[in-house]
Amino acid sequence: MEEQEHKPITVLRLGHRPSRDKRVSTHLLLAARAFGARDAIYTGIKDVTLEESVSKIVKEWGGDFSVEYSESWKKTLRAWKGKIIHLTMYGLPVEDVIDEIKDDLFPKLVIVGGAKVPGDLYGMADWNVAVTNQPHSEVSALALFLHELYCGKELSLNFPGAKLTVVPQANTKKVIPRAIHMSNK
Amino acid sequence: MEEQEHKPITVLRLGHRPSRDKRVSTHLLLAARAFGARDAIYTGIKDVTLEESVSKIVKEWGGDFSVEYSESWKKTLRAWKGKIIHLTMYGLPVEDVIDEIKDDLFPKLVIVGGAKVPGDLYGMADWNVAVTNQPHSEVSALALFLHELYCGKELSLNFPGAKLTVVPQANTKKVIPRAIHMSNK
Repeated sequence: MEEQEHKPITVLRLGHRPSRDKRVSTHLLLAARAFGARDAIYTGIKDVTLEESVSKIVKEWGGDFSVEYSESWKKTLRAWKGKIIHLTMYGLPVEDVIDEIKDDLFPKLVIVGGAKVPGDLYGMADWNVAVTNQPHSEVSALALFLHELYCGKELSLNFPGAKLTVVPQANTKKVIPRAIHMSNK
Repeated sequence: MEEQEHKPITVLRLGHRPSRDKRVSTHLLLAARAFGARDAIYTGIKDVTLEESVSKIVKEWGGDFSVEYSESWKKTLRAWKGKIIHLTMYGLPVEDVIDEIKDDLFPKLVIVGGAKVPGDLYGMADWNVAVTNQPHSEVSALALFLHELYCGKELSLNFPGAKLTVVPQANTKKVIPRAIHMSNK
């Protein structure tokens, strides 16, 4: 995907709490991977199980998406060489700002909140972007944002090195291991 | 939104487990509401807290989205008067089938899986639809599907009767209660 090469996306997930957020954070990171982000960083409490869940998916389904822990979101923001996008229901509508964001050629850090988003983040972001001004989920907000950014091309991304590949079916399941997939080519 | 009137969507969430799925199911139901579904049904274990979380959001943020519990997904499917869409990573690519689905004028039940999806569901659905063939989240899959179905018009949906309204801002938060909102009109 050409867009991805030009505009690598790193997702920053704020304030992960292993006890409450494990499944939502896993879904968020898998959505980041599936919709074309290059990698992700999370803050909050370090969670090896979360990291392992994601790396297991990467091993099976391909690509080189990776996840890192950061102790401080402010340090991550200060070290970031590129633009900063904060997804929040209080921001400007994605449909109004997406063209401006698409035109920008810098790498992007896309921040999605956790339990409490620090107030000063709004001022540090280049764009505060709302995927609707309604409460829903950081998972749906991130997926929609990446979908708009990549113009739907992320739906047919290729993930090299996959051990498993789905063969799309109208009314059943078909998953083939890589060896078979290769020999069928 | 004209599309919504012609093609009401009910979301069916399968196999909810309060202990594990509370947050993901809440996110899923809020995404259903935010992206224009009319209502939702869930199966699995009845969870009053889940229902209350959603109805609290509806009271504050408007609209008339509602959630019901069903003891049996098969009974729900048999009683359904309309088409059935099953979102699954094993289905046909959303980009290939969305036009056909858009052309269909029946109400739609959009099913999203829980922990284990029963095998016979694939044969009972009119469409098995994949939002990418990668593992991610039912929350992102549902949001993307509704976004494609409603052609992005769901991003500017109006929710009547809201007590709270966000005024989109470039770099801060602004939420106004309904009384002020009305007097500013």
